[in-house]
Amino acid sequence: MALIVQKYGGSSVGSTDKIKGVAERVLNTHKQGNQMIVVLSAMSGETDRLVELALAMQEIPDQREMDMLIATGEQVSIALFAMAIKNLGYDAVSLLADQVAIHTDTMHTKARIQEIDAVRIKKHLDNGKIVVIAGFQGVTDNGDITTLGRGGSDTTAVALAAAMQADACEIFTDVEGIYTADPGICAKAKKIDYISYDEMLELASLGAKVLDIRSVGLAKRFGVPVHVRSTFSNNTGTWVVREDKIMESMLVSGITYSKNEARITIKQVPDQPGIAAKIFLPISDAGILVDMIIQNTDDGHLTDMTFTVLRRDYDQAMKILHKVAKEINAKTVTGDKDIAKISIVGVGMRNHPGIASTMFQILAKEGVNMMMVSTSEIKVSCVIAEKYTELAVRALHDAFALDKENVPLEEDE
Amino acid sequence: MALIVQKYGGSSVGSTDKIKGVAERVLNTHKQGNQMIVVLSAMSGETDRLVELALAMQEIPDQREMDMLIATGEQVSIALFAMAIKNLGYDAVSLLADQVAIHTDTMHTKARIQEIDAVRIKKHLDNGKIVVIAGFQGVTDNGDITTLGRGGSDTTAVALAAAMQADACEIFTDVEGIYTADPGICAKAKKIDYISYDEMLELASLGAKVLDIRSVGLAKRFGVPVHVRSTFSNNTGTWVVREDKIMESMLVSGITYSKNEARITIKQVPDQPGIAAKIFLPISDAGILVDMIIQNTDDGHLTDMTFTVLRRDYDQAMKILHKVAKEINAKTVTGDKDIAKISIVGVGMRNHPGIASTMFQILAKEGVNMMMVSTSEIKVSCVIAEKYTELAVRALHDAFALDKENVPLEEDE
Repeated sequence: MALIVQKYGGSSVGSTDKIKGVAERVLNTHKQGNQMIVVLSAMSGETDRLVELALAMQEIPDQREMDMLIATGEQVSIALFAMAIKNLGYDAVSLLADQVAIHTDTMHTKARIQEIDAVRIKKHLDNGKIVVIAGFQGVTDNGDITTLGRGGSDTTAVALAAAMQADACEIFTDVEGIYTADPGICAKAKKIDYISYDEMLELASLGAKVLDIRSVGLAKRFGVPVHVRSTFSNNTGTWVVREDKIMESMLVSGITYSKNEARITIKQVPDQPGIAAKIFLPISDAGILVDMIIQNTDDGHLTDMTFTVLRRDYDQAMKILHKVAKEINAKTVTGDKDIAKISIVGVGMRNHPGIASTMFQILAKEGVNMMMVSTSEIKVSCVIAEKYTELAVRALHDAFALDKENVPLEEDE
Repeated sequence: MALIVQKYGGSSVGSTDKIKGVAERVLNTHKQGNQMIVVLSAMSGETDRLVELALAMQEIPDQREMDMLIATGEQVSIALFAMAIKNLGYDAVSLLADQVAIHTDTMHTKARIQEIDAVRIKKHLDNGKIVVIAGFQGVTDNGDITTLGRGGSDTTAVALAAAMQADACEIFTDVEGIYTADPGICAKAKKIDYISYDEMLELASLGAKVLDIRSVGLAKRFGVPVHVRSTFSNNTGTWVVREDKIMESMLVSGITYSKNEARITIKQVPDQPGIAAKIFLPISDAGILVDMIIQNTDDGHLTDMTFTVLRRDYDQAMKILHKVAKEINAKTVTGDKDIAKISIVGVGMRNHPGIASTMFQILAKEGVNMMMVSTSEIKVSCVIAEKYTELAVRALHDAFALDKENVPLEEDE
């Protein structure tokens, strides 16, 4: 008998009929002799509806009260789902975060899970019940309701799987798994069968939206095997597991892109010690994250600083920087919103330093100019003009033969 | 500085604009130097919406899960309301039943309050906060959510007022208070300024819908002064208080009617010991409440039994009784759904035995036949044909001069 955690997102429980369908699906796994913990999100559209109500009350809604409000979305889902299970003749019990309890810190609207009590869940499981738990929420030591931020239900599911030492954590979504590239722009994209936590972390942080990045970090820390799969089929999806569980690593596992960033350059900055702090401190003080940074020194006295920020922060960053540029006697500030970041990810490239240059060659051959580059142990990212995004993804996908069957590294050499 | 509990029903908080209006109203009382506890119902329509979702899952929804589901309605109201107060520059905190905590028994969908902790509320009040509490709900010793049944928010408010030793409990509703009769059918109906708990209990049980009967019983037990008044005006409403606080009692305080009942007669029942149990046990086993019972003995051997049940239970009761009649050799079962129960209520009639006969005379003068009569110390109820309801209410209202200014009993004699 295995213990399985299954998480269903908002679109999977978006109507009473869909909830009934999910209930049957959960029962199928239960009937095979498995203990089941089900984590649910709010019905699709519900969280947005509640946020709209809040915005009608306060321009910037109080965060504690916001959590009190939007936590009702998952509460509705789990109650309806438990009814659906009971209607099919099986026993179920719904539990809120404070009933479990799922303890978090007090950072309302973006709380972090600190500890999960296993006792109450275990008791219900031992009584043969399907335990249905509200995703996305937690409780502080004070008894206040918190929420974990968008995508938080994934984190709830993985954290529960870790706390309960579950055999697997299945994340049900509206796609078949993790793909070698976005199938929407790359027809040859192939579902990945196995991927390592580290690769998934890179993919999630680089724009793949299937799995919340925090949940991947948690899964890695506790070694929780995560199965990302479709609510609407019975196909095996993608297993996110420890690297040593994957028999055959690929040189490159996936290609991802992000159109959420913008590039800013400050030209002819006097190159003095402490100048970088003068530029980036006001930016971080405004809560703006800086991703890639490049510094080109001309002649030892003047330097150009280029970096990327999220596109939604672009206008605010430009405003701040125009002020800063004056103070530090820089020449100009220029910016560009029409960029994309293309990344290739794969644990195989750890021992293959040539991967980055292969990527550069392929882009050059397609006439795509690279504006910025950054690398980590298992990824290479390039900033290019946004209009080349689809072309670049397809060219790289072909070049690294991601549409071919998994081939061990040795043979690839 | 007084401590005031105010309860607003679903129609008072039925939209974000209405919630804002209520927030201003609460602040007006707060600014006069009062500590405030606000109890809210779900936004109007919300509970019905949730019940509909539940019925889509299960024909008879599981009661624990039903409570989990519908408790979200009040949770949304209190979060939005706390935001509205904060938006006006004052401090507020919303609390769920389990956060207070409001302890109840485990009778899901109709739980009873057992105890309320005052500590957390008191701490917030002492910090100058307006404390906003979800009506209608409680928590079991197990941590499960319960609800108190329809009208339960009134009970929450009165119970909180008792537990916190509040100076007053104000129930805001969409009418101006308690009337001497339904203004919809009796144009001369007058708002009552003061009414005793016992009279209010009779009025509530006899069909007046303004105040939930359980809350009146609770208010009586703990001596909580209850002020029933309108959300949409600043007028004084009706104070429900201890009898000795009312200077001038009226002979008759109010006239009420109910069209919710039906009458059933079993004819020519063999008059043996234990025969009543044989008739009423199957009825009560089916969860059907019997109100008035009349037994007419003909000749010592055969008797007619007449009684009333709620109209919605009529068909089920008739089915059961046809079966019972056969078993006990009764002749026939007849029934009548087109009846109404007209009642006059007043503590003054305790010492005035003539009130009932005055009522009978008035009805007779109008040509209204009385089918059944029942009396208590402070009320007389008559069952009449439904079509005479409005006529009877108006005639009695005139006869007992309820449209005149409050007149002491002595002068009335």
